[in-house]
Amino acid sequence: MDLPEIFIPFLHQIDRSLKGTVAPHLPNSLSEPINYFLKMPGKKVRPLLTLFSCQAIGGDTDDALPAATAIELFHDFTLIHDDIMDQDELRRGLTTLHVKYDEGTAILVGDLLIGLAYQQLMKSTSPQIDKIINIFTEALVKVCEGQALDKEFETRTDVSVDEYLDMISKKTGWLIKVACSIGGLSGNAAPEQVELLTSFGDNLGLGFQIQDDLLDFIADESKLGKKVGSDFRMDKKTHVTLKYRELLQADATLQSRYPMNIPEFNSFSDFQSALYEIGVVESVRKEADFYIQNALSALEKISPLDENNYLYQITQFLQSRQY
Amino acid sequence: MDLPEIFIPFLHQIDRSLKGTVAPHLPNSLSEPINYFLKMPGKKVRPLLTLFSCQAIGGDTDDALPAATAIELFHDFTLIHDDIMDQDELRRGLTTLHVKYDEGTAILVGDLLIGLAYQQLMKSTSPQIDKIINIFTEALVKVCEGQALDKEFETRTDVSVDEYLDMISKKTGWLIKVACSIGGLSGNAAPEQVELLTSFGDNLGLGFQIQDDLLDFIADESKLGKKVGSDFRMDKKTHVTLKYRELLQADATLQSRYPMNIPEFNSFSDFQSALYEIGVVESVRKEADFYIQNALSALEKISPLDENNYLYQITQFLQSRQY
Repeated sequence: MDLPEIFIPFLHQIDRSLKGTVAPHLPNSLSEPINYFLKMPGKKVRPLLTLFSCQAIGGDTDDALPAATAIELFHDFTLIHDDIMDQDELRRGLTTLHVKYDEGTAILVGDLLIGLAYQQLMKSTSPQIDKIINIFTEALVKVCEGQALDKEFETRTDVSVDEYLDMISKKTGWLIKVACSIGGLSGNAAPEQVELLTSFGDNLGLGFQIQDDLLDFIADESKLGKKVGSDFRMDKKTHVTLKYRELLQADATLQSRYPMNIPEFNSFSDFQSALYEIGVVESVRKEADFYIQNALSALEKISPLDENNYLYQITQFLQSRQY
Repeated sequence: MDLPEIFIPFLHQIDRSLKGTVAPHLPNSLSEPINYFLKMPGKKVRPLLTLFSCQAIGGDTDDALPAATAIELFHDFTLIHDDIMDQDELRRGLTTLHVKYDEGTAILVGDLLIGLAYQQLMKSTSPQIDKIINIFTEALVKVCEGQALDKEFETRTDVSVDEYLDMISKKTGWLIKVACSIGGLSGNAAPEQVELLTSFGDNLGLGFQIQDDLLDFIADESKLGKKVGSDFRMDKKTHVTLKYRELLQADATLQSRYPMNIPEFNSFSDFQSALYEIGVVESVRKEADFYIQNALSALEKISPLDENNYLYQITQFLQSRQY
């Protein structure tokens, strides 16, 4: 599903701004890979959240454009460095930076993007710029913590669903939350508005991530791609696999019917069936809905949930994804 | 040569502050490598420059401690990521982070240090905090540019001395310059004072780097270590090797006596002798002195060059190094 048409002018604004960050004097060995990466397709959900959060509190989206650009550059930095660490070869359907160029280049481009992100952020004319910098910086620290925990979990067998949620809220949820709060601060939002936007973003980020995890297991197999199959064999920890184990551990009857060790399933589709039978799908879906509803409750206090509320529109778009 | 004793209380202050940045809640996979790195010996020249720059304009060094800590964390980040890119196995005599742990950890620790650095910076109570953030961020961008140029030069044969100086001023000089200007800004220095401190730091950084390059070739062989020998064989571009080529290119007689291609020398000591004979050593030493004198001229306009001027003291210390 594509983004709603009303978002297109905003996407163009973000794209133009992103292109503007690549200064002409940069050495070729940096500008070329950055341009390659910036041209990759992407939904730009995070910077849109920043612009729409500013709008939701009655601000001018133009005032949030530097922060929105910073959020996307930050997101790109995390993707580029994560791809090296996870040795992923494809990103958004294209060769990852460290494969197309080399690891050194990918490390350096990621580092540079942090710098360019702060440069964008400092263009903000909001009187609350110090708060913006503090929140943005906290996100940088949290994202590193989240990625570290994710790596630690790979070698642990006792990860609980709560620990997983804590990790994922740092690794991916935090930036979504910050995209919203910084958008509000860019429009000089009052503290109670910032709090509501933060709550909206926090819940949206979690709901969105849980839904993503679920879609990885139950979406149409043609849309899943190879990665999920291999993740399943590698027994990668996700909300779904941890919930599966949690439910099995609590029920001896289920343990006699299904293996505790997921790679022991004969096939991925056998595992998919089990997820429905045991109630993992229902349980995880309910959790995602719970967070999305929380997000909407916070949002409603800022602005009515109608077609003029772009944060509401983007939430509906995210919720409607089949993949 | 050790740092002058009068610096010791300041070093302790910096060390305590650095240790304080490692929050107790950090995942082990991050706090352990960070603590390992922070315990490595290091002269802490950059944070000292920050403290002393604040002092030079009549400020309280305590006010510059957050910025000094940020400067050292930033420096550590560059060392950690550069070591991965250069595949160096030793740093300050100890195993580098990516070798002791793994590359993913070293990438992540470097990223985190940038975040921790900004967190420190934001603790500054200077009314000029926005300028501090802008200058610090510019340094992040420049350091990446410098590192990119350094890598580009590896595959180029036509690098001029001027291009090399531009690269090295970004890669290593910039942070020394910024250490000084941010120190002044932390003490709420007037614009003309900041300008003088920036000029001091800029010239000191260049003079210091040129001197370093020279010491790599002429210092006592026992103090040189293996690296220089291998750099010589790999024909790594440095101020000294580029100056050697420049002088040779300008003089046909010299070309008949010495090889243009440095690895063709029979031994490192033959190359060392040539450096003296052709006048490379003299020429490079003069250049280093020129920049150091420029630095002192700027400094003199801020504060008399006497024993109470710690920036003067540290300049003398740096100049006196035999290695």
